[in-house]
Amino acid sequence: MKILISNDDGINSEGIFALAESLSEIAEITVVAPLMEQSAVGHAITMQIPLRVTKSYKEGKFFGYAVNGTPADCIKIGIRNIMKEPPDLVVSGINHGSNTAINIIYSGTVSAAREAAIMDVPAMAVSVTNHDVKDFKFAAKLTKLLAKEIAGKDIPKGTLLNVNVPDVDENDIAGIILTKQGKSKWDDIYEQRIDPYGRDYYWLTGNLMEVDKEIEIDQVAIKKNYVSVSPIHFDLTDYETFKKMKTWNIEHLLNGKKN
Amino acid sequence: MKILISNDDGINSEGIFALAESLSEIAEITVVAPLMEQSAVGHAITMQIPLRVTKSYKEGKFFGYAVNGTPADCIKIGIRNIMKEPPDLVVSGINHGSNTAINIIYSGTVSAAREAAIMDVPAMAVSVTNHDVKDFKFAAKLTKLLAKEIAGKDIPKGTLLNVNVPDVDENDIAGIILTKQGKSKWDDIYEQRIDPYGRDYYWLTGNLMEVDKEIEIDQVAIKKNYVSVSPIHFDLTDYETFKKMKTWNIEHLLNGKKN
Repeated sequence: MKILISNDDGINSEGIFALAESLSEIAEITVVAPLMEQSAVGHAITMQIPLRVTKSYKEGKFFGYAVNGTPADCIKIGIRNIMKEPPDLVVSGINHGSNTAINIIYSGTVSAAREAAIMDVPAMAVSVTNHDVKDFKFAAKLTKLLAKEIAGKDIPKGTLLNVNVPDVDENDIAGIILTKQGKSKWDDIYEQRIDPYGRDYYWLTGNLMEVDKEIEIDQVAIKKNYVSVSPIHFDLTDYETFKKMKTWNIEHLLNGKKN
Repeated sequence: MKILISNDDGINSEGIFALAESLSEIAEITVVAPLMEQSAVGHAITMQIPLRVTKSYKEGKFFGYAVNGTPADCIKIGIRNIMKEPPDLVVSGINHGSNTAINIIYSGTVSAAREAAIMDVPAMAVSVTNHDVKDFKFAAKLTKLLAKEIAGKDIPKGTLLNVNVPDVDENDIAGIILTKQGKSKWDDIYEQRIDPYGRDYYWLTGNLMEVDKEIEIDQVAIKKNYVSVSPIHFDLTDYETFKKMKTWNIEHLLNGKKN
């Protein structure tokens, strides 16, 4: 099995080290990850500047390829130019911090896995629910189990798994549960400050407003110490509203030009 | 009616000038847009550096607020700190180039409208199907009609409209049609080049592989000179695969820990 590994925290982060170590026990791994931290870059791709690929080392040994771009860039160039052919699986992570509910939209970790799904490669994004992660060991071990599980299953092309692991002792993990994306959102606050030159600047902060209650929702599951596994895709069409809007007869806007 | 306007091409682009001019005829407008071009930034938000807001002028008159961030940043700070309260509508555009099929995932234009939808504000993204747009007049006029249309309709919270307008003479427009996101994707190519110092670098290029045939698909509609209007949302859950994965019984991965 060949696995391409990436992340959004950058190639020199603890989470990707733990992931690479664990997955190398079951597969031939290739690491292609951002040179610099790329948290909250969403599904950005780099078109305005050229990309550079450099070799990256860990304790004097070759670890992987660093790219001066985004997580999605890493997957594209990793598959097209570095691996030359698609791997059996792409795993993005292990992220420092959860990617549930609305955070999936902003997440660089998820975008790497989603880019793989766009390229018809099975993929998963893995996150631990704490920015200051105590221990990646359990998440790394679980990812290995899930990688083997996915290998034997028929996940539809274009679908990826978004996995969130509570940052608690393995003995305190309640179980593993299939979930849907939650509806919790951030109540954004821009802290207004004044720089040493007397000019205003703004830092984004805020609180996640938790609105979901069902255990089959990602954000609820992790709060109850369950590992959360959500199948997600990149078809953004709102089919219900599509049906409803049929009754609008929008063609009247163009004065009788019928479609 | 109060309308917040943004884009991803930057506050000094022809498309946003045309949009602001047209919408100011029917609403009180506020422009909050990126200082620099932000194409293909996806749904990135800025957390690593502080944001600055500066006034931007057009022909000596105040035009709007420029933010050193992404389209999604502009909507967040525009609503929270500049307008202080939600507008009746957010319009993002008019983009230079189409945002159909897979491009919706990469688009900064769409992300601005999606951020508004996340904040429960009705929103639309408007694009013209050509990077070197001949004339924004028809698209600007149509956006005005759609803005009035939306004002009288009940679009569900969390849903936005993704509008694409063919870059043809108004007389050649075939009509307006309700569509779904297409499945066309890019066949990415990284052109490998050598810089003046003998080092490799890569530019992203590629071709859109058109796979859809139905007229009710965004990419097909614009090719046939229809204005395409797609309702999209930000729930990424793949419900079909969710149902299918129920049969996996993933709890076996944690050795009997039942959920």
